[in-house]
Amino acid sequence: MHFTSEQRLDNGVLERRFTVGDVPGILWTRGSAPAPLVLMGHPGGLDMMYPRLAARALGTVAEGYAAATIELPGAGDRPRLAGVDAARAELLKAIQAGEPVSDDIVERLVLPLVDQAVPEWQAALDALLALPEINDGPVGIAGGVISIGVRLAVVEPRISAALLFAGSYVPRSTFSEARQVTIPLLVLLQWDDEGNDRQMALDLFDAFASKEKTLHANMGGHTGIPAFEGESANRFFARHLR
Amino acid sequence: MHFTSEQRLDNGVLERRFTVGDVPGILWTRGSAPAPLVLMGHPGGLDMMYPRLAARALGTVAEGYAAATIELPGAGDRPRLAGVDAARAELLKAIQAGEPVSDDIVERLVLPLVDQAVPEWQAALDALLALPEINDGPVGIAGGVISIGVRLAVVEPRISAALLFAGSYVPRSTFSEARQVTIPLLVLLQWDDEGNDRQMALDLFDAFASKEKTLHANMGGHTGIPAFEGESANRFFARHLR
Repeated sequence: MHFTSEQRLDNGVLERRFTVGDVPGILWTRGSAPAPLVLMGHPGGLDMMYPRLAARALGTVAEGYAAATIELPGAGDRPRLAGVDAARAELLKAIQAGEPVSDDIVERLVLPLVDQAVPEWQAALDALLALPEINDGPVGIAGGVISIGVRLAVVEPRISAALLFAGSYVPRSTFSEARQVTIPLLVLLQWDDEGNDRQMALDLFDAFASKEKTLHANMGGHTGIPAFEGESANRFFARHLR
Repeated sequence: MHFTSEQRLDNGVLERRFTVGDVPGILWTRGSAPAPLVLMGHPGGLDMMYPRLAARALGTVAEGYAAATIELPGAGDRPRLAGVDAARAELLKAIQAGEPVSDDIVERLVLPLVDQAVPEWQAALDALLALPEINDGPVGIAGGVISIGVRLAVVEPRISAALLFAGSYVPRSTFSEARQVTIPLLVLLQWDDEGNDRQMALDLFDAFASKEKTLHANMGGHTGIPAFEGESANRFFARHLR
């Protein structure tokens, strides 16, 4: 892990850019006492997503956590993934033509991302948990591509609680992986999300094997999650990461 | 309104039994400064429900509200409603026989309750809002028979926010009334509620016209709402009754 830059944000939060191998990321911390870590997901494109990620990170750090994220494969300045780009183009074409999005397109779009991203998040986790500012207790994940979150929740025992956004296309294999997830979950669903199949999101919520799983459905589209859900996230992590 | 008894509970909360006309009720307050009012619903039978109602009331009063409830028509010590009792017996028989519960039974069970209860809650509201310990600002309702809550949300302009439990049989007319509800809503759904049709609960949530409506679904049966939803309720009312 190499730190490449740092700056102070509001409220004494230290933002540091880093790389783990070839993968760039950002870490937000405050103070030197070891804090529990929340990994923040996103749809890819750290620079484009930066304003929203930094706002989420400031809220997370204010609650006493360290927050970190890394770039997704094929996104931002990372080498493109030709197969994923082709599938994304087919997806957009199908949506614009008003045609149904086939399982095949979704699998070619999402599965290569999951297969490559999950080991990268695990490598980042190894590096982050070795820092003195981060404690080696339970880790949370919040948001991002839901199939990546589900796979991480299955394969990574250090992750103890997951906040998932039901807002992206989900391959069938994610449903079978969901049946193996047993950690506490908070799933946020935008009821009128134009890029989301509501019934599929409800079916996925039903599939999780977790004894504690909560669905919060709110009105509005993909980016319209109400501000008060930030408080819900804080209380969810406070129950499970402390 | 006549107060018939009073006692001090924990934390300085004053519990007073009262009647409005022939309808008995309970009021919980703390201190003399005017507080916003939350009306607490229940399935009927104040004495049987008392432990759970008092626990909810203590939590509500601790957050700075006054809490009140009244007995439902045909329940507790009030005169029985023969038609409702007959419909309830038919409902239990159908459930025990594993038969579907017909719309007709649900309507004969719920609609007479709604028609009689709603004016009684409004009369109680008149009396309660005249008390110096209760301010004349927005009123919240929490829980109880969902069809009563929906009707109150439509016809009673003093009610500004409703927390509804998706857990009872719902006549078709409640769906058309739900389309007229525009106040902020928080709907709690127990995902595995044995006495509840999950899809019907989701359809009812979809029907509400409220711009701010949030669904919280948790695992477990009818009485298994997690304790942390008490915090959700407090934050919901803090946004809308202050």
